[in-house]
Amino acid sequence: MAVETFTTASGGELPSLGLGLWKLENEKVGPIARRAIELGYRHFDSACDYGNEPAAGAALEQAVTDGLCRREDLWVTSKLWNTYHAPQNVRPAIERTLSDLRLDYLDLYLIHFPISLRFVPFEKRYPPGWFFEPNADEPAMEFDPTPLHETWRAMEELVDAGLAKHIGVCNYGTAMLHDLLNYARVRPDVLQVELHPLLTQERLVRFARERDVTVTGFSPLGAPSYVSSGRAAEDESLLTHGTVKEIAARHSKTPAQVLLRWGVQRGTAVIPKTSSLDRLEENIALFDFELSADQMQRITALNENRRFNDPGAFCEDLFNTFCPIYD
Amino acid sequence: MAVETFTTASGGELPSLGLGLWKLENEKVGPIARRAIELGYRHFDSACDYGNEPAAGAALEQAVTDGLCRREDLWVTSKLWNTYHAPQNVRPAIERTLSDLRLDYLDLYLIHFPISLRFVPFEKRYPPGWFFEPNADEPAMEFDPTPLHETWRAMEELVDAGLAKHIGVCNYGTAMLHDLLNYARVRPDVLQVELHPLLTQERLVRFARERDVTVTGFSPLGAPSYVSSGRAAEDESLLTHGTVKEIAARHSKTPAQVLLRWGVQRGTAVIPKTSSLDRLEENIALFDFELSADQMQRITALNENRRFNDPGAFCEDLFNTFCPIYD
Repeated sequence: MAVETFTTASGGELPSLGLGLWKLENEKVGPIARRAIELGYRHFDSACDYGNEPAAGAALEQAVTDGLCRREDLWVTSKLWNTYHAPQNVRPAIERTLSDLRLDYLDLYLIHFPISLRFVPFEKRYPPGWFFEPNADEPAMEFDPTPLHETWRAMEELVDAGLAKHIGVCNYGTAMLHDLLNYARVRPDVLQVELHPLLTQERLVRFARERDVTVTGFSPLGAPSYVSSGRAAEDESLLTHGTVKEIAARHSKTPAQVLLRWGVQRGTAVIPKTSSLDRLEENIALFDFELSADQMQRITALNENRRFNDPGAFCEDLFNTFCPIYD
Repeated sequence: MAVETFTTASGGELPSLGLGLWKLENEKVGPIARRAIELGYRHFDSACDYGNEPAAGAALEQAVTDGLCRREDLWVTSKLWNTYHAPQNVRPAIERTLSDLRLDYLDLYLIHFPISLRFVPFEKRYPPGWFFEPNADEPAMEFDPTPLHETWRAMEELVDAGLAKHIGVCNYGTAMLHDLLNYARVRPDVLQVELHPLLTQERLVRFARERDVTVTGFSPLGAPSYVSSGRAAEDESLLTHGTVKEIAARHSKTPAQVLLRWGVQRGTAVIPKTSSLDRLEENIALFDFELSADQMQRITALNENRRFNDPGAFCEDLFNTFCPIYD
């Protein structure tokens, strides 16, 4: 199925549906990525932190070699990890990611979090995660004082050098994005944030749109990626929500398809992860139906400002460090 | 009554109670400020934007001249207005405020909002408010692209020059404050944000405390300052809330005193405004009683994340400009 694209401010054609690679196990990412390309996926959302860039890269390279698609048909996103915010570490970080992904350039490189952590050398640990010394008696995150505008300068140089076609940020709110737009020489093309019907972030999405920043929503299905870690309750699943099920039945679609379609139709790219070949096929069948204005509104009305991916909570639980960014 | 103080990171002694000058009419601010000093107030929270600095300054000067207090006993805060964020305008802005307030230095100068607006010359209009051209056919806010770190550099120079003893920010969230702490040469000593039991902002207050930034809460009584403008409903008043009234009765205090005491006791300075001489006296009688841990908790539990002062709402209503900063 042909995936519609969104044109970014600097002329990128971002496919409105991508495959999210977070939590895809190394042994699964290759077959899933290859099958995704066969099904029409061209957008892959990766990150150093996901720990599977070599496996993903091997699959992408093989698919191009085998003629399933051309490199220029792909949109590959990756993300600068928190430990590489210091300007001198930004280029080595993208070069490592490019090497792992077997690419000459990224379509999009994003600052993963507005949190700068102490540098961990590649040879010490890669990907480095959130700790400098994970085996310390009382491990905690160690902050690094690099301000975001200095990191952004280094991100801009990646565009100058042709290593990234476009750059952007993740997990920024409106005031942070406003400030970034004031100091950017190379504009942020994309903002990636958590978005689903329990966390619609309407003002943030509207603000980004008005400032011509394309928005990608991660965790577009809501709770599923967070249940196993205890960050979401089973009964928070939108896949079994009455409203979503009813609308799905009207269109002879699945609840997941309705949730993803809602995201695309409001103008945000969606990047669901799946390790199921069936769901991979299900998730791309979004472009042969349309939700009515009333259906869109009913889904939007499910909003509860429920954020599953919140460093203000999980950094304390997991890393003994209080690190709120949305409060 | 003696007002307790909070010691800021750079050694300032911020009185935990101040008189907020927002919305005090010019003809009232003089008598109210003088009476406040007689009652023991030493902390005055002013801003260019309030439009009453000359009247306040005359009263403060007269009080010192008359021996009611010494200048060095006072803590005078003022705020850099949005139209003066460009570095070259920061010093002229504080000099105008100092001239109006008849002071040689401020104890604290704050960035009023993380919103930079197009410069309005003093001779065109002072205070300039939110519009560049308020009489245009379709008036709207006009943004200026000065990033916050450049404004902060200019704020730091005010400390170097002795024009402000301490500097800080208003209306910043956690991520913005985190970034500021990363780029600050002169630390932000104070964060001023909206705080009351309907908007407790516990994570933000905790984060500021952990980073040694003293917090001042504006609108500590909640709704009252926003009812006349329609931004708050009558029934949102905390002064008539059953829990607050019950706790007040236990202490033979008023609901207002309980709300202010709650603020002070959680370690945040409070700056209630009043144009009533009786309430002025009521509001300072906070240091002869203590709320129990249970009472503190019951008041904190009233939180509804209800923000009355939100540019994301009022800038669109009043200034035809969508300008969210908390989303």
